[in-house]
Amino acid sequence: MAVFHDLQKKKESASSFFFNFVPLKRKKQYIHTQKMPEISLRGAIMPASPIRKLVPLANAAKARGVKVYHLNIGQPDLPTPPNALEALRHIDRKVLEYSPSEGLLSLREKLVTYYRRFNINVDVNDIIITSGGSEAVLFAFMACLDPGDEIIVPEPAYANYMAFAISAGATIKTIPSSIETGFSLPPISEFEKLITDRTKGILICNPNNPTGYLYTQKEMEQLRDIVKKHNLFLFSDEVYREFCYTGAPYISAFHLSGIENQVVLVDSFSKRYSECGIRVGALVTKHEQLKKNVIKFCQARLSPPLLGQIVAEASISTPPEYMLDIYNEYVERRKFLVDSINKIPGCYTPIPMGAFYTVAKLPVDDADLFCQWCLSEFEYEGQTVFMAPASGFYTTPGLGRNEVRLAYVLKKDDLAAAMKILEKALEAYPGRTL
Amino acid sequence: MAVFHDLQKKKESASSFFFNFVPLKRKKQYIHTQKMPEISLRGAIMPASPIRKLVPLANAAKARGVKVYHLNIGQPDLPTPPNALEALRHIDRKVLEYSPSEGLLSLREKLVTYYRRFNINVDVNDIIITSGGSEAVLFAFMACLDPGDEIIVPEPAYANYMAFAISAGATIKTIPSSIETGFSLPPISEFEKLITDRTKGILICNPNNPTGYLYTQKEMEQLRDIVKKHNLFLFSDEVYREFCYTGAPYISAFHLSGIENQVVLVDSFSKRYSECGIRVGALVTKHEQLKKNVIKFCQARLSPPLLGQIVAEASISTPPEYMLDIYNEYVERRKFLVDSINKIPGCYTPIPMGAFYTVAKLPVDDADLFCQWCLSEFEYEGQTVFMAPASGFYTTPGLGRNEVRLAYVLKKDDLAAAMKILEKALEAYPGRTL
Repeated sequence: MAVFHDLQKKKESASSFFFNFVPLKRKKQYIHTQKMPEISLRGAIMPASPIRKLVPLANAAKARGVKVYHLNIGQPDLPTPPNALEALRHIDRKVLEYSPSEGLLSLREKLVTYYRRFNINVDVNDIIITSGGSEAVLFAFMACLDPGDEIIVPEPAYANYMAFAISAGATIKTIPSSIETGFSLPPISEFEKLITDRTKGILICNPNNPTGYLYTQKEMEQLRDIVKKHNLFLFSDEVYREFCYTGAPYISAFHLSGIENQVVLVDSFSKRYSECGIRVGALVTKHEQLKKNVIKFCQARLSPPLLGQIVAEASISTPPEYMLDIYNEYVERRKFLVDSINKIPGCYTPIPMGAFYTVAKLPVDDADLFCQWCLSEFEYEGQTVFMAPASGFYTTPGLGRNEVRLAYVLKKDDLAAAMKILEKALEAYPGRTL
Repeated sequence: MAVFHDLQKKKESASSFFFNFVPLKRKKQYIHTQKMPEISLRGAIMPASPIRKLVPLANAAKARGVKVYHLNIGQPDLPTPPNALEALRHIDRKVLEYSPSEGLLSLREKLVTYYRRFNINVDVNDIIITSGGSEAVLFAFMACLDPGDEIIVPEPAYANYMAFAISAGATIKTIPSSIETGFSLPPISEFEKLITDRTKGILICNPNNPTGYLYTQKEMEQLRDIVKKHNLFLFSDEVYREFCYTGAPYISAFHLSGIENQVVLVDSFSKRYSECGIRVGALVTKHEQLKKNVIKFCQARLSPPLLGQIVAEASISTPPEYMLDIYNEYVERRKFLVDSINKIPGCYTPIPMGAFYTVAKLPVDDADLFCQWCLSEFEYEGQTVFMAPASGFYTTPGLGRNEVRLAYVLKKDDLAAAMKILEKALEAYPGRTL
């Protein structure tokens, strides 16, 4: 199986490699050495989730009695809105039936109103409910991209975009943004350079996961112009729109005039109401042919989760006071985490302007090894910290090697403990570079 | 967009067409005639769900005040077990968090016990929880099949297998089974003829959707032999295992010795507990490499629905008396529906031995047109019937043209009304052939 391991390393050229390789007859080389049918190359080249791949090490640490602080995953510790939980307790259906493939009408209607608050003017028929934002990305790619098609994404980027692109057989071409420039949008000329006649779209996440960057009006207009010029899709993941922490406005892709039919908005209830487990998201588009296409994928999987949709619908009515409390909590956590990191010798993170993540540079040889080491070989007063190595958010080899993504989804006391542990870990780590 | 419509008609050769066509540069031909980026060919060639594509006509009929009996979809009217609904009402979590990507451990442990009742001996690590059986099929294909790979499926077959194969870029080759032989397994020599060096597996659904056929011990052994001989995967969709209505035993793919590592079992809670809306299923395999591969797809979509898993776990403890009531209800409905159909002049259906569907031959020119006509142009005493045209369950052109799939998921009074309407519709339909 050595070829699979080599392939793993080749993730920089995974998709193109994949499609050049597939037409060869690969079967014969394995058939005599193993008694099992072989798995797909697609799966073999798919990178493991940088957010979840170290989970077994964390579980082992917990089994040893070590307390693990989870900064690796965007799972807020904040309560799901009580009105949402109340809706759950009051479900009086006798049969938990399929919902429509495109989602409950009542939920889609409520979303129309929700979006209007953000000056996003869409019709109920523009909204298709998905099983989490994840499925919205998958269906967007499946319905827009064919094998060999390309999309351009600034990196670091949410790692699972790559997984969904591989699922669709498409190629993600990345343009590095840098911690030195606070992860702002790379020059638009860099996008132009990558455009070929297989380029179908540009993908952004705004506010950004993992960097917390919030694209400016000017940057969004640059994106609009290039998307318009080359007739591309603009895939815009805006699940963190409620978490913008500066006076700068949140610019939705749907705010950009002249490309209304090119926007594919990805949304999710998970983060804004701290209900990641309900698995409800949405794909929003005004492109009529695309809607029909996405609906076919929706019908194939029958329906999104009914119970989650009931919770999601109730969540939209969460009182503004509750949302403000949550917001203020993140503002505090953000300040605390960013200040704490920047106080540790050799560490640096720019101020994230939105979402609830930040990418930090650490004084280590290799953040992948450091994160593993924290879970498997280190503890401080019976505790350790679980971080996501940033390398998994880049596809350009070597980038993010000394960076981690940290989620400030834990309460301040826990963040304080985690930062103390990080500081101690950096002092003890054999591969420290300071 | 004429090419898309032509493509739709070409579903017989959809996948191969797709992959021959993709490398061409298609973009230029559209770019000047429309202002929008074009959708994927993958989506364009994907057939609409035969179960759901007529939904707009049904909705229009309802809007006209016509009562519509749904025989088109496997959505039982039977109540979800009270203990499952009770579990829902007693969720006292404050945060509806992500569950593990592979599903809740407690649910997987309970499934081990559940399968043991059916003499299916699997370990907790062999079970991966999915968002419905649908996702189990999708992930099985994604993780086993590369573009151009082939699987062999007896037809008629559950229509969405084709959609998931197109998603994975794989080709389904079908072997017709016939209503004349009660939809028994086609001769194994027919399978042998289709095997190439791109064949990766055989897919069965047992008990079968849409035919209700239950594969015999002898047929299952034939499948085992060919799967073993050619080192193939045996994808086995067994979601209807609790609904077998004859003395003949249910033979799981996992009962077949010598191919344990080749079996990929697809399961779902939807049908057996009448909880289609919870979206919880499972993929079960002992193939270690495949498990790792599937987990990567699971991690990419983060987690299956939490709330559904809680309901599913409680459902496994449904008292046997309750399950027996459900079973007896289906036995009665089956007898009623089959007898009723066979009494109508020109109609015929073989006795389904399991699941809750049957495929019936009707005296009509074209069942697609007939089903549309029933929804849009016919009513009897303010009522009509929604059936699934069987053509969508075949890929061989022309097959199933005068057949429909009927689900006996409604109570007997409703089935009686629906059969009366069917009889009247057949008398009035301009394209009747009797």
